[in-house]
Amino acid sequence: MRGAEAVLDTLANAGVEVCFSNPGTSEMHLVAEMTTRPAMRNLLCLFEGVATGAADGYGRMAEKPASVLLHLGPGLGNGLANLHNARRAATPVVNLVGDHATYLKALDPPLNSDIETIAAPVSAWVRRTTRAADAGRDTAEAIFAARSGADAGTGGVATLILPSDICWSDGANPAEVPVVRPTEFDPGEVERAAKVLRGSADCLLFVGGANMRPAGLRAAARIARATGARLLAEKSPARHLRDPGVPDIPRLPYPLDDALARLHGYRHIVFAGARPPVAFFAYPGKPTSLLPASCEVHQLGMAPAALEYLAELVAPAGGIPGPAPLGSAPTRPGLPSGELTVAKAAAVVGALLPEYAVVVDEAMTCSESLLAATAGGPQHDWLCLTGGSIGMGMPAATGAAVACPDRPVLTLQADGSAMYTPQALWTQAREGLHVVTVIFNNSSYAILASELARVRAVPAADLRRARGFIDISGLDFVALAAGMGVPATSAQTADEFADQLRRALAEPGPHLIEAVVPAAGLW
Amino acid sequence: MRGAEAVLDTLANAGVEVCFSNPGTSEMHLVAEMTTRPAMRNLLCLFEGVATGAADGYGRMAEKPASVLLHLGPGLGNGLANLHNARRAATPVVNLVGDHATYLKALDPPLNSDIETIAAPVSAWVRRTTRAADAGRDTAEAIFAARSGADAGTGGVATLILPSDICWSDGANPAEVPVVRPTEFDPGEVERAAKVLRGSADCLLFVGGANMRPAGLRAAARIARATGARLLAEKSPARHLRDPGVPDIPRLPYPLDDALARLHGYRHIVFAGARPPVAFFAYPGKPTSLLPASCEVHQLGMAPAALEYLAELVAPAGGIPGPAPLGSAPTRPGLPSGELTVAKAAAVVGALLPEYAVVVDEAMTCSESLLAATAGGPQHDWLCLTGGSIGMGMPAATGAAVACPDRPVLTLQADGSAMYTPQALWTQAREGLHVVTVIFNNSSYAILASELARVRAVPAADLRRARGFIDISGLDFVALAAGMGVPATSAQTADEFADQLRRALAEPGPHLIEAVVPAAGLW
Repeated sequence: MRGAEAVLDTLANAGVEVCFSNPGTSEMHLVAEMTTRPAMRNLLCLFEGVATGAADGYGRMAEKPASVLLHLGPGLGNGLANLHNARRAATPVVNLVGDHATYLKALDPPLNSDIETIAAPVSAWVRRTTRAADAGRDTAEAIFAARSGADAGTGGVATLILPSDICWSDGANPAEVPVVRPTEFDPGEVERAAKVLRGSADCLLFVGGANMRPAGLRAAARIARATGARLLAEKSPARHLRDPGVPDIPRLPYPLDDALARLHGYRHIVFAGARPPVAFFAYPGKPTSLLPASCEVHQLGMAPAALEYLAELVAPAGGIPGPAPLGSAPTRPGLPSGELTVAKAAAVVGALLPEYAVVVDEAMTCSESLLAATAGGPQHDWLCLTGGSIGMGMPAATGAAVACPDRPVLTLQADGSAMYTPQALWTQAREGLHVVTVIFNNSSYAILASELARVRAVPAADLRRARGFIDISGLDFVALAAGMGVPATSAQTADEFADQLRRALAEPGPHLIEAVVPAAGLW
Repeated sequence: MRGAEAVLDTLANAGVEVCFSNPGTSEMHLVAEMTTRPAMRNLLCLFEGVATGAADGYGRMAEKPASVLLHLGPGLGNGLANLHNARRAATPVVNLVGDHATYLKALDPPLNSDIETIAAPVSAWVRRTTRAADAGRDTAEAIFAARSGADAGTGGVATLILPSDICWSDGANPAEVPVVRPTEFDPGEVERAAKVLRGSADCLLFVGGANMRPAGLRAAARIARATGARLLAEKSPARHLRDPGVPDIPRLPYPLDDALARLHGYRHIVFAGARPPVAFFAYPGKPTSLLPASCEVHQLGMAPAALEYLAELVAPAGGIPGPAPLGSAPTRPGLPSGELTVAKAAAVVGALLPEYAVVVDEAMTCSESLLAATAGGPQHDWLCLTGGSIGMGMPAATGAAVACPDRPVLTLQADGSAMYTPQALWTQAREGLHVVTVIFNNSSYAILASELARVRAVPAADLRRARGFIDISGLDFVALAAGMGVPATSAQTADEFADQLRRALAEPGPHLIEAVVPAAGLW
């Protein structure tokens, strides 16, 4: 069989059943094969960043890889920012990049570029298939690399470069994907951590990664109850399953001073599913490591089994902790009224969040309020901007909706970052995905206003000087959404927002709501 | 002075007076410095591909570099596709990429990535500044690299990576940019070519690059008249100055068979400002080099002086050829009427093209008709998609309008490729740029329909099978433009299109016209 057939059969046999694609001429044989295979669902994206972001959102929710189909080096370049986020989220992604035919590439045609080099910084695994006979095997190894890197938490973006003549040449066969062995952990390290937690005060258990699900959160709470350790979670988990029946854990805040204060004073910090946190950005005169100077670090690794084992060691008869062992249970906010503010918009979201929602959070300066206001909500998943590379929100929501067709998806989207990948709305419309996008429109890159002062570049009092870099007024998100086939409304008051959000959530298909919020007295 | 001040002063002293920017926290000190310097015009872009594409368009028209300000590796990734086009166009671009502070980078914060590696495939020159004391020197060398690479035709994208602490630290000084020596050529090679042209029939003179301006086109025509050589130009020149007083040269066509036919039978091909053409894509069973097997290649290099010298050698008293020495002078088409087709839309553009327009051509399947219909128009520049990386049209037009504030800019834009960088419209609106964007909306990736058949992936008769990859209906470009503050209209007939184009060209500021054209019976 042809190389393209072997690629597609290998994917299908391994249960990779979705492809987010933006192909060109060099991918036409892969395209042709996809049109004949009902086992592979093709979702066309009008921009590559949508495809890669969708694969990230899909992989986080489906817990298996989607494939992506991109066109040469420039197509990969367009997809790089969201692959960066997927890498930081350790999402499994089978990233197929077409290339020129092997015998044309040496002549350096206009669209030629060094694809391996562009792929390397975001990929855990990169390979170029050089013979049709290898197409099946290479695809299988890409799937294996995506799965095992995701399981190990080390990065699950596997990039396979497929020259066009490999795809159209005969002599290929599908291959089987080896079984991924569960990620191991060092029991000795866990036992040492158990001893520390039992023997010392001033201990913090810092969790993240795959522990941000009920099993991990329960284990952490059990450990805290048995040992008195305090709990903290990473700032931006890939997927945080929040459930009223499961204890929640506060997250590390973004502002550096707040983060430092949160970690201050601990003698021992045990990391489970997370790395020791560092400053998101450097600020003149401030530290970059967030750990107290005298603190001892205990690293349990990324495997959830390590945290479970720790819980068994320190709380063998610990039972299952109730919903809120660390304080009073949060409650849902009531519906506010009057002119819309960020706090009121957050309260509306908290009040109306439907059960089993998948929340994709790229709300930037509005995130903290939204996270707090939804703490008392029904069970839902919360997906974060893991790599800080903006433009992830609407694409990831698109992928999450494909992975979870029976669940409502709610995108909490800042206005500035919405403009990196707005094309995601078109795919949502074409596929009829039930995604509600809320744009928090403050007409500015509000986060840069704070950052300008924090890095001591422009004094807060002199902010108007930098207006040309921060003011992004002039966008009409209702029109933008309409341009891509998504019905949209704008809310100026809390009542309008509540009304529009309730209706959008109740109606199938995509909707967009522009929540007009003040720019916090910027000018 | 601080590093950021030295960077900005060095740019200003060298006459780099425009920055297309999309900064983040790590670039705040550069931003702050820009707000105090009237010599540097900042143009905010809502997506990095707009910034890099604008720098490409600016550089082609201004013949000097703009600067670009991007945020870390993901921001560079988003700008990569249009840097690829700038590289192929040999446009000078000073590409400033901010990075984490030197002492934070080693800790691998979430937004960290390997910027050098991402930059390498599109850059002629890459450097990371490691001490504030080097900031001025490195900036000067970046400007020099951009200019000299552009002059030599080898690529003018110079990427300078500026860690945030370099920008905020003291001890820097501005530096002077060395003068770029004119690109040399080998007179012996030109003399050999002259001998061949004088002595042989079956000669072709193939021109491109900087020869696509009046001096080069006149020299080529003079050589053709004196020697009987035929003339052909590269497919996608970076900038083709078309003037009714200057002979035009037909361009190599895109379809492989047509291109092969065009080059068939020549014994000698002399290249001036162009490389020997290769297939844009490989097609099963077709050749990749376009040159006849027995053909002898004579390479004069990229310097326009080589072509001038050749003209002096073969036609010392050649004088200046008139407008159309190679056939009858083309005329402007009349205004058509009735339902809009691609041919009629092209005729409207040909009839109404204003004098001194800058035309940016990303019309894809509509390009050929548009190029033909404007051959008899008044003097204008025509900018092509040099690297084949789509999403260049509206950004390059934005940059061209900044470079040429007194000239009308006309973007001839296919619908599919418009969706890669539509955010350019916002910058056009904010800056009040006189750009008229015509979207040729056939609701499809029409070029892929032909390519599917050409690569023998899907027979033309079975095209409906691939509809999911080609049909992009559902976009409303009038709403999209309105969403970004650009007034827009839609034309269904030739009369409407003519009326709307005439009015848009007459009114200052940006406009968008959707020209609804048939999808050539795709389904």
